[in-house]
Amino acid sequence: MTRVGIIGIGHGKFGRRSDANVQELAFEAFREAVADAQINLNDIDGSVVGSVPEYHQQRSLAGVVQEYLGLNPKPTWLTEVACASGSAAIRTAWMGIRSGAHRIMAVIGCQKMTELSTAEILALMGRVGDVQWESGFGTTFPAYYALFAQSHMHQYGTTRKQLLEVAVKNHFYGARNPKALFRKEITLEDALGSEMVADPLQVYDCCANADGAACVILAAEDVARKNSKPVVWLDGAGCASASVSVLRRPNLVGLPSAQEAARQAYEMAGLGPKDIKVAEVHDCFTIAEIMAYEDLGFCKKGEGGRFISERQSYIGGQTPVNVDGGLKAKGHPIGATGVSMTVEIVKQLRGEAEERQVPDADVGLTHNVGGIGQYCFVHVLRRE
Amino acid sequence: MTRVGIIGIGHGKFGRRSDANVQELAFEAFREAVADAQINLNDIDGSVVGSVPEYHQQRSLAGVVQEYLGLNPKPTWLTEVACASGSAAIRTAWMGIRSGAHRIMAVIGCQKMTELSTAEILALMGRVGDVQWESGFGTTFPAYYALFAQSHMHQYGTTRKQLLEVAVKNHFYGARNPKALFRKEITLEDALGSEMVADPLQVYDCCANADGAACVILAAEDVARKNSKPVVWLDGAGCASASVSVLRRPNLVGLPSAQEAARQAYEMAGLGPKDIKVAEVHDCFTIAEIMAYEDLGFCKKGEGGRFISERQSYIGGQTPVNVDGGLKAKGHPIGATGVSMTVEIVKQLRGEAEERQVPDADVGLTHNVGGIGQYCFVHVLRRE
Repeated sequence: MTRVGIIGIGHGKFGRRSDANVQELAFEAFREAVADAQINLNDIDGSVVGSVPEYHQQRSLAGVVQEYLGLNPKPTWLTEVACASGSAAIRTAWMGIRSGAHRIMAVIGCQKMTELSTAEILALMGRVGDVQWESGFGTTFPAYYALFAQSHMHQYGTTRKQLLEVAVKNHFYGARNPKALFRKEITLEDALGSEMVADPLQVYDCCANADGAACVILAAEDVARKNSKPVVWLDGAGCASASVSVLRRPNLVGLPSAQEAARQAYEMAGLGPKDIKVAEVHDCFTIAEIMAYEDLGFCKKGEGGRFISERQSYIGGQTPVNVDGGLKAKGHPIGATGVSMTVEIVKQLRGEAEERQVPDADVGLTHNVGGIGQYCFVHVLRRE
Repeated sequence: MTRVGIIGIGHGKFGRRSDANVQELAFEAFREAVADAQINLNDIDGSVVGSVPEYHQQRSLAGVVQEYLGLNPKPTWLTEVACASGSAAIRTAWMGIRSGAHRIMAVIGCQKMTELSTAEILALMGRVGDVQWESGFGTTFPAYYALFAQSHMHQYGTTRKQLLEVAVKNHFYGARNPKALFRKEITLEDALGSEMVADPLQVYDCCANADGAACVILAAEDVARKNSKPVVWLDGAGCASASVSVLRRPNLVGLPSAQEAARQAYEMAGLGPKDIKVAEVHDCFTIAEIMAYEDLGFCKKGEGGRFISERQSYIGGQTPVNVDGGLKAKGHPIGATGVSMTVEIVKQLRGEAEERQVPDADVGLTHNVGGIGQYCFVHVLRRE
């Protein structure tokens, strides 16, 4: 079975992009990735598009993107698993190359959120939860994650201050990422003073919707080895599911899908949490990042609050996390997020992350959650 | 690279299914497929769901189906390419098994269309075409396919009577399929007397929306060979794209994506059109089946009208096509269709198709089109 390398990365500006429709956003990232990979359009065998279709007036998104990128008549299709759609696209392309069906594939994560109002988005996202027993009773996404936060605070003594320390860190790094939506640092006092959204989550606990796209180009080992840049290998790919209904979960202090996906990814790569030099995790809410520290094994269950308070997830700490700003400061164009995470890890492993570079980073990880944890994809990447 | 076999098939009743929500439809097909494969739930490594999410009130469909089928914490994700979503799911699972990432995967195609009104469906489907230059000007799906029909009639002298002969054939076989929506034969006079929808397409030229689900279980060669039933192998998998905008197509008398996907599938299987003993093609409109005869090489371009008039696509003719009733009589739950086609071909190759059995069928083909041909998946299946 061939190893799969990432030979090209591209990333558009995240934000309110009234200047571009969704296929134009895709092109912005794709063009950069093709140039980075130093390949021609004809070298690409096909594409997989990660996106959530119902946010766009234009449906049949894979086809529209494929046409706009100039990739007809090559194969294309779309993957959807809510906010993890980009990682499902990466997994699909990784399987496609390992299977021998394809040699070089482009993965495009793209999403235009701002065609809809915030209220429409909240309603649509809520329906990613169980519509029969939950979302009909008001469980929008902030409400769902507030349940996790309440449980974690109750069971482990995690504090509102610790939650918001995650936001302070991610804004600190977002200020250093030119592609991020929010490029300003915040203080803990700013954060603690922000409005309550769903107790205990305040405005600064929540990531922001954004438009944006990111692209990675995957290739079979022999192709990748000809690349002039250091190749980053996708050596561990884990994927797991959990009940959509949170009522059926054993507890609300972690995501069983994340724990299982991490187990698979570590096992496949022959590595463990201690080997991870830099991680991108799914901080749709601050509590989600704290649970991720634990679910990924960076610390024990219940110690995530201490982990951020001790600055273990800053550069210089035990495992730097979301040093591109995370969903929190970078913005969260849902289909693009998993691909954006991968772009950042590749940059880090290549040593191209400039002022937010983690020293000696040779192994990295992405953790991309769909919905309320009904899906999780964990990928372990390694530079040789 | 392992060969991939289909070891289990299941198919629910297509129609207005007010008795079941979409996950219940999925379960109906899945349960039958698991029993057919003679495996246990725990033997299944994961699932891929083919569906178009925006038709359902409940989003995050893969997660909801996975939970309802009892497959947590196994991996799952959804593929979407409009009416070819089911075939994209099959391709994904096929790659997953060939890649070594999975050994046994369930593919579930499912769709509940009747949560929306016909007018809502028409508007939503229209937006699968180009929203900027086309669908805003009235190109609903019947209008798009009317353009193909007009072109074909103009260029090759194909007649309205020939178009409707496709409908007569498909209703003839639909009457013999207990899972079909329409189980009654029609006469050519009935068809010619039906109302005009989009000139030259009349009511009987158009397939009907339906609710429904189908399931196939794919397995690696060593697993498949232990199965007690004759194994059907997925030996050729072709996939291609074309511009979404029909304005950019070189002509409207065929689908370039279908021609290219067929070329790939035949080449991979080491077979050609003459080897195909039974085919399932995407007859969303009668003209689409006539173009498929040509695009797949069953006859030359322009001779599709003659092919049906000479009854070459009936059992006993050169290449029997849609002998389960096709989309026309069986109904078209868009995400389920590609999987439903595959179920029928497996039945035919196993010799289990009862009164619609094609004699000596050892090689079969599915042809599943997404949108207006911006996607096409062609699969060649073989019984050993």
